[in-house]
Amino acid sequence: MGKYKREENISYTLGTTLTIELLNSKPDIVRRVYISPKLDKGIGFTEITELCIINKVEIIETEKIFKILKAKNNCYIIGEFNKYDFVLEDDANHLVLVNPSNDGNLGTIMRSALGFNFKNIIIIKPAVDIFEPKVIRASMGAIFNLNIIYYDSFADYLKTISCYNLYPFMLKAQSKLKETEFKEPYSLIFGKEDSGLDNNYLSIGQSVIIPHEKMIDSLNLPIAVSITLYEVTKNKY
Amino acid sequence: MGKYKREENISYTLGTTLTIELLNSKPDIVRRVYISPKLDKGIGFTEITELCIINKVEIIETEKIFKILKAKNNCYIIGEFNKYDFVLEDDANHLVLVNPSNDGNLGTIMRSALGFNFKNIIIIKPAVDIFEPKVIRASMGAIFNLNIIYYDSFADYLKTISCYNLYPFMLKAQSKLKETEFKEPYSLIFGKEDSGLDNNYLSIGQSVIIPHEKMIDSLNLPIAVSITLYEVTKNKY
Repeated sequence: MGKYKREENISYTLGTTLTIELLNSKPDIVRRVYISPKLDKGIGFTEITELCIINKVEIIETEKIFKILKAKNNCYIIGEFNKYDFVLEDDANHLVLVNPSNDGNLGTIMRSALGFNFKNIIIIKPAVDIFEPKVIRASMGAIFNLNIIYYDSFADYLKTISCYNLYPFMLKAQSKLKETEFKEPYSLIFGKEDSGLDNNYLSIGQSVIIPHEKMIDSLNLPIAVSITLYEVTKNKY
Repeated sequence: MGKYKREENISYTLGTTLTIELLNSKPDIVRRVYISPKLDKGIGFTEITELCIINKVEIIETEKIFKILKAKNNCYIIGEFNKYDFVLEDDANHLVLVNPSNDGNLGTIMRSALGFNFKNIIIIKPAVDIFEPKVIRASMGAIFNLNIIYYDSFADYLKTISCYNLYPFMLKAQSKLKETEFKEPYSLIFGKEDSGLDNNYLSIGQSVIIPHEKMIDSLNLPIAVSITLYEVTKNKY
């Protein structure tokens, strides 16, 4: 039990719904569940208890971990789990995030990605940590149903794919999202929040733009990603 | 100079870019500009100084206001302005937000709305305050180019429109976004972050859904709004 550290193997789900999602999706990685003495033992608690019994997970009543992790006032249940490795699905389309830097944004992107069943995500470092409790919370637990792989550089990622069609999203791009034909398997590539992708990406694949008024500099990153995932998966829904 | 208060007439832009946006978009409402003694007087400062001279706005060097407003470490310029009244454009389509409760979300929605030139926004109370400095920052200044009106209730809003076609966005809706024909002038209606619109809205107008996997409960509110604005304005871009 301790402060969250990126370099260590343990992370946490802060809250009842998230912890239920963890126990349902990835029971094998759960180490234990902490409950606060302040918890009103209602419906959520009953569900957690049942899931813990089924999966032989210990429940510990303590206040300490809530303070260490600076849990919000309305958080009375915390799940502790072992971080795990992901594997990408073969030939699946990829969402590639180059240097994402904001916890909340990354979580929101995960939620949209799962919503549109776009499950294979590549993150190019430096980048925020997907196991940071804030990211997990912002993802509303979507992280437990996605496949997410880090690479040290975009070049390293390129070495692992051969036949993928690359679509970098850039303000200088020529092809509009609604008019672009995305040939599978493809990689949808987005840059970081404040600066986007640098000009070098204009020379790879087919660059794409979501046209908008000049009154704003750019769309917010999770918005741009989500609009794109909506558009490319539209025929399925 | 003081703490931000919803009931008072003054608000603030925290940061150089936002303050430049304020001075460019709404010079008449600017009361003064504060600069921190720590400011590196580079390009942003030169632009601000010129705008202040043109618009006869006083610049005050002080550290105090930065502490009072709990400005971030990289914020060295603050604009102080008088809140102002908005007027909706005649017959324009409306975005209606019922009880939005999160500062960052509201700002992000404003940025998307301006991006897709969807400038007329209705907010039904209780709701967050559009002039709260955090909302202004999340809007990246988009607020200064939008028209935003509050109503005490949805019923009050309905009394002001007669020929508008109503499209409430709900998980129980029948009509899919991509298949819905939006007849102008229309109101796109979205509920609050955690609970959405209540079932009563199913009986007004044509309810609409953005279909997604059951693996997530719902899309994040700014994501749902932005996908919708993208879809309805798509032919223009």
